[in-house]
Amino acid sequence: TQTPASGVTGLEDGSEKLFLGGFMQGGLESCWFFRSPSLLITWFRCNKERGLSGPTAEDLSSCMLNQAPGCPDLSILSFSGAFHGRTMGCLATTHSKAIHKLDVPSLDWPIAPFPRLQYPLEEFSRENQQEEARCLEEVEDLIVKWRQRGKPVAGIVIEPIQSEGGDNHASADFFRKLRSIAQKVQTGGGGTGKFWAHEHWGMDDPADIVSFSKKLMTGGYFHKDELQADKPYRIFNTWMGDPSKNLFLAEVLNVIRRENLLEEVARSGKALMNGLYELQAQYPGLLSRARGQGTFCAIDVRDAETRERITQQTRDKGVILGGCGEKSIRFRPALIFKEYHVHLFLNIFNDVLAQHK
Amino acid sequence: TQTPASGVTGLEDGSEKLFLGGFMQGGLESCWFFRSPSLLITWFRCNKERGLSGPTAEDLSSCMLNQAPGCPDLSILSFSGAFHGRTMGCLATTHSKAIHKLDVPSLDWPIAPFPRLQYPLEEFSRENQQEEARCLEEVEDLIVKWRQRGKPVAGIVIEPIQSEGGDNHASADFFRKLRSIAQKVQTGGGGTGKFWAHEHWGMDDPADIVSFSKKLMTGGYFHKDELQADKPYRIFNTWMGDPSKNLFLAEVLNVIRRENLLEEVARSGKALMNGLYELQAQYPGLLSRARGQGTFCAIDVRDAETRERITQQTRDKGVILGGCGEKSIRFRPALIFKEYHVHLFLNIFNDVLAQHK
Repeated sequence: TQTPASGVTGLEDGSEKLFLGGFMQGGLESCWFFRSPSLLITWFRCNKERGLSGPTAEDLSSCMLNQAPGCPDLSILSFSGAFHGRTMGCLATTHSKAIHKLDVPSLDWPIAPFPRLQYPLEEFSRENQQEEARCLEEVEDLIVKWRQRGKPVAGIVIEPIQSEGGDNHASADFFRKLRSIAQKVQTGGGGTGKFWAHEHWGMDDPADIVSFSKKLMTGGYFHKDELQADKPYRIFNTWMGDPSKNLFLAEVLNVIRRENLLEEVARSGKALMNGLYELQAQYPGLLSRARGQGTFCAIDVRDAETRERITQQTRDKGVILGGCGEKSIRFRPALIFKEYHVHLFLNIFNDVLAQHK
Repeated sequence: TQTPASGVTGLEDGSEKLFLGGFMQGGLESCWFFRSPSLLITWFRCNKERGLSGPTAEDLSSCMLNQAPGCPDLSILSFSGAFHGRTMGCLATTHSKAIHKLDVPSLDWPIAPFPRLQYPLEEFSRENQQEEARCLEEVEDLIVKWRQRGKPVAGIVIEPIQSEGGDNHASADFFRKLRSIAQKVQTGGGGTGKFWAHEHWGMDDPADIVSFSKKLMTGGYFHKDELQADKPYRIFNTWMGDPSKNLFLAEVLNVIRRENLLEEVARSGKALMNGLYELQAQYPGLLSRARGQGTFCAIDVRDAETRERITQQTRDKGVILGGCGEKSIRFRPALIFKEYHVHLFLNIFNDVLAQHK
């Protein structure tokens, strides 16, 4: 648990490593953005640039005026279609919808393409490999370009599955290769059938910092030991964690374990995907690109207008579906969504789709 | 109450105006910064610049790349010594201590001097008027300069009493004059003897947006009707308010009213200030610049080292005092701090001070 004492001393208090940085009021956004990249940039400055010598007098005076070298011109690389939050720094790495960004001043930071995969994956493996290679090359090019511009990339932020941007997936191979150039990953927890989505990639060392929120009741992150803030007050806020949210969370984790909810998610996710594949075969002009991990699934609809009508009609029949991207429907059931819920849903969905044939 | 529905529709739901924007997870920082200036900048763009015509296709495409005109190069003017939070945008308006800002990329935004008043106020009224006039002139100059630089000032953010920066006060006259050029004010609630510090200034129209947190259990803001977001999803986050915090807050407000705590604060604040004036007269080389509003008081100590030793010694005697600025002690008792607590405290403080004569 991140506590006031850990903010003041700059050290962990060692009580519960799992919820390092469980900020009640920090929220997902300030949490990942202010805290994790701040940690990353601090680490980058302290270890890669400044070494052991500590800040100079010029660092200390210039930072008070928002100027370099104290406030360095470092950048964070993000991906087109990404959503990382809405505070100013987060928003500079968010590129999903214009309404989020319009009219808010931003930063000149690099934006790489996120792979746009073709489905079904088995049929397009060569094309998808090429697409992922193109995106990785672009990442490398942008890192070089921004270094030349005097705004070196201090870190990379990526969603394991882009949600707001359209439920865009990439392969485990993509993330493994990105990891060899990159330093940061964001993940949510549970709905993919593993506790963290990055567990699907089979990597010993998937990320330097992982941030979380939503299902986990509070906003927080965990990180490698060497990223621990070097000084007190680097990472701090008014409340520094809300113990009541951690109590709730401990119980949530107990229920997940006791009721084997991750296995349930894997099981009902499989049923959901199979159902979506069948519907996609049944309505080829209407549905395409069924994709997912656990119950964290999505499917594309013919066009945005039809997507709106479908989600409205399922809502009238008692099923709330969300949209994402330009014309996708995303599925985000709770962890207690079982196989029989899948069948209930597929029947209702089928009834609605039949009207759009 | 700001609810998911109010974020989606872009309209208030009209249920409880007082707690507009009570964000559980938004926090003070994302709240004031992302939400209130975002609101301000949106309003500025929609009303002062764009008029009724709505965003252009270029606005919509450029904003996805963090570029103007969609992400305009507008700025927020802040004051030296200010503390407005730690997320990137907030931090660009924070100028209290280097450790908050060091190594975090920032924005080229204007920073005006905050008046540095001399005490006791009665003796230095001419000097203090000149000092405040100098700061106001600088504000006007900076607004002109930043317009010429192509980064027009869309808003001004100021603390009614700069806390972290050293408990720096300015006169009601300063705030009235600033208001004629400015658009934004931040305040905390209760400790000054009025619910909002700006009520001391005697203005019908003290600010366009007021943000709050800490004593008010959650982070939020309220604003003038015309600043209401023009579109859904402009102001949004995962939770959009935590009803449980609003329940706590409703009870806090009941207690404040039922027990007349604001009157208590005015009464004990007066006793505290009188005590500080006496101690300052008794230890002229050690204490100076006693100042305050309600129990929101501060006093300067000879030097930073002595300040540290004094606060450590009072802590050993059971009284926790905080430091602020370079060598100030700040008093931030709870609203239930009564006159007899003041006398208990003054006795302990006197004992400690006697050791530093």
